[in-house]
Amino acid sequence: MFQSKLFYKAKKEFPKDEESINAKYLIRAGFIEKLSSGVYEFLPLGFRVLEKITDLVRKEMLSLNAQELLLPALHPKENWLATQRWEKFDALFKLKSRTGSEYALGPTHEEIIFPLVKEMISSYKDLPLALFQIQTKFRDELRAKAGLLRGREFLMKDLYSFHKTNEEVEKFKEKVDRAYLRIFKVLGLKVYKTFASGGTFSKYSTEFQVPTEFGEDEILICSNCKVAWNKEIKSDRICNFCKEILTDHKAIEVGNTFNLGDSFSKSFDLKFKDKDGKEKYVFAGCYGLGISRLMGAIVEVFHDDRGIIWPEKVAPFTFHILILKKKVNLSEVESIVKIIEKLKKDYLLDERNISFGQKLVESDLIGIPYRLVLSERLKNMIEFKERKSEKVKLLKISELFKFLKEKLKIK
Amino acid sequence: MFQSKLFYKAKKEFPKDEESINAKYLIRAGFIEKLSSGVYEFLPLGFRVLEKITDLVRKEMLSLNAQELLLPALHPKENWLATQRWEKFDALFKLKSRTGSEYALGPTHEEIIFPLVKEMISSYKDLPLALFQIQTKFRDELRAKAGLLRGREFLMKDLYSFHKTNEEVEKFKEKVDRAYLRIFKVLGLKVYKTFASGGTFSKYSTEFQVPTEFGEDEILICSNCKVAWNKEIKSDRICNFCKEILTDHKAIEVGNTFNLGDSFSKSFDLKFKDKDGKEKYVFAGCYGLGISRLMGAIVEVFHDDRGIIWPEKVAPFTFHILILKKKVNLSEVESIVKIIEKLKKDYLLDERNISFGQKLVESDLIGIPYRLVLSERLKNMIEFKERKSEKVKLLKISELFKFLKEKLKIK
Repeated sequence: MFQSKLFYKAKKEFPKDEESINAKYLIRAGFIEKLSSGVYEFLPLGFRVLEKITDLVRKEMLSLNAQELLLPALHPKENWLATQRWEKFDALFKLKSRTGSEYALGPTHEEIIFPLVKEMISSYKDLPLALFQIQTKFRDELRAKAGLLRGREFLMKDLYSFHKTNEEVEKFKEKVDRAYLRIFKVLGLKVYKTFASGGTFSKYSTEFQVPTEFGEDEILICSNCKVAWNKEIKSDRICNFCKEILTDHKAIEVGNTFNLGDSFSKSFDLKFKDKDGKEKYVFAGCYGLGISRLMGAIVEVFHDDRGIIWPEKVAPFTFHILILKKKVNLSEVESIVKIIEKLKKDYLLDERNISFGQKLVESDLIGIPYRLVLSERLKNMIEFKERKSEKVKLLKISELFKFLKEKLKIK
Repeated sequence: MFQSKLFYKAKKEFPKDEESINAKYLIRAGFIEKLSSGVYEFLPLGFRVLEKITDLVRKEMLSLNAQELLLPALHPKENWLATQRWEKFDALFKLKSRTGSEYALGPTHEEIIFPLVKEMISSYKDLPLALFQIQTKFRDELRAKAGLLRGREFLMKDLYSFHKTNEEVEKFKEKVDRAYLRIFKVLGLKVYKTFASGGTFSKYSTEFQVPTEFGEDEILICSNCKVAWNKEIKSDRICNFCKEILTDHKAIEVGNTFNLGDSFSKSFDLKFKDKDGKEKYVFAGCYGLGISRLMGAIVEVFHDDRGIIWPEKVAPFTFHILILKKKVNLSEVESIVKIIEKLKKDYLLDERNISFGQKLVESDLIGIPYRLVLSERLKNMIEFKERKSEKVKLLKISELFKFLKEKLKIK
């Protein structure tokens, strides 16, 4: 894509009405705009990142044999009364239609998916079942000052699984845990599997916590075991496993996996007929992953004074080609573009008529992982630089394909 | 996908609380469920159709050099006050946060995108600009009885374009019209380009109307010119172009293209500096296409007494393989699956342990375009049948690849 055509404008300063690193950087670099407190607009750069995170998460969900569906945001009041959460869930947005129907705007979908599953299944043969969606959620947050980390409107993946026994839920939960860890590994994100309060059916639920100063959770990390405890369940400061002293961190929860037991099944009378002919309550788990929140967490972790440093798999583009010469050699640019297309990667080409210094500043701000510079001072060589490194490498165009293929580990 | 694993249940009867053909068929065939009046859940079959329509529409939008973004559903009251639509727009869902902020749930996004574009552009060099999103919208409909044709919550593609002059808007609008017609052609859907009221800046806006008995619009069709007029602007019954007598039809509007002139730019003071150094208002157009509504319209048009008849490009699966034998030859099934995978198409494989008659009934109900039947009575032959035709063809497995490749016009 040509940068001159991109709906994008870098700002000279960080926005003054944002406190969090993620919102400051993402707004300044032209990825998002704030519409109102906790409500953000995703511009083309930001949308591309969301899409890439979505693709990565969807692939892992499908690998669990979960099926994708799409549930509404408008939830009937009755469904939330059935679980007593109409009153108990503080952050529930509520509204009324002209004809008097009352709705909640869904912050989660247990109240919707349990009655749906009840409509569709009846026998042990219908289980296990795993369903997920990637959908916009709403929470009436009192304080929404952490950018994408805590929004009033946000994009989330929610997965629900349904089983014959509690043990089956636990086994499936472990599979989801591993899928989440694979996602974080691809992103290079250090995420702590964190013990948190679990409700009735299992001692703990699992939170996936990213340490960051703008996180709203407090966790205790064992640097030896690489696990953590949410402070809400942990008064002592010594690791259960290795007796190491735990350290305090602020963190943001980017995902969770939770054994619901049969609690929601009881609220909605969700039962199945087992092999022995008896009717039993369905056991279930729920598994959330914040898509837009993950985008925010990535920026909290991967940035420096100059801007964002995107992990390759979710960067808005893989390559940033900067033309820092007055006389552009079009065939040279075309050759580079062809090489990138042959590698099946995407690129942003800065061919704008602005100062070279400004192009370099904005390139660092946007944070595309690989930069290729064409400049008069380089003669016919091309400068390659990774955003995360200070080293540069000069290459002939004839060497470029082989070099990039190895660098990006493309088979 | 194995049908025994699909989150799906065909119903024996049409739902009693639905009037429209689309909702009756889609619910009975397991594509959607009704959550409340005008609010539907998309089950895996329905979600696959939505995704395929989305892909088709997205491809056409990108071909117009429009850039994709994602705007919020929670709109600040102030934005809607600025256009005087906070009070005037009857079907606006309104809500209030705990902290007293007032929002509209977006039924359209002019109120959001104009201030955003104002933030980002300033010069004639930034124009033209086209931005689109595929996003969930909300309308507080008094009467929501037409299934997916008129929902309180629905999926929509909205495109906005920004230009230096009114003429440029008109030219771009024509391009969008052609893109829409390409989409409808791929779907095999007979859509009438319909003259409708246009506001101040052009005499007419364009509606894309599909004649169907559950449509809520009334149009007058010229069967000679293949164009139509919305009754709201047409008192006489004779074609402007050929003098043919027009015929009355109920129809559903699946898309529209509208020249907004500089009306919204004036509301939000959206100006650009022209070549001559003067500040001028930006001219704009808006172009909607209902994604979930299109899904409903397709069912209204393409069905028979037995079920839905999906156009190939947006069918939930391209092939339905029915195993109507007691002793399954696994290697035979595998060979067929391999052929379909080689054609890069998807399939649903009915390997359920239910009566053969029931499988045939449900296959017609679901309406996948191409059916392959394995049956004892066919010996080693495979029966091929198109959902839209009564003819069957018997094929040897060795003939199948070549036959399907030609049938589906795959290069």
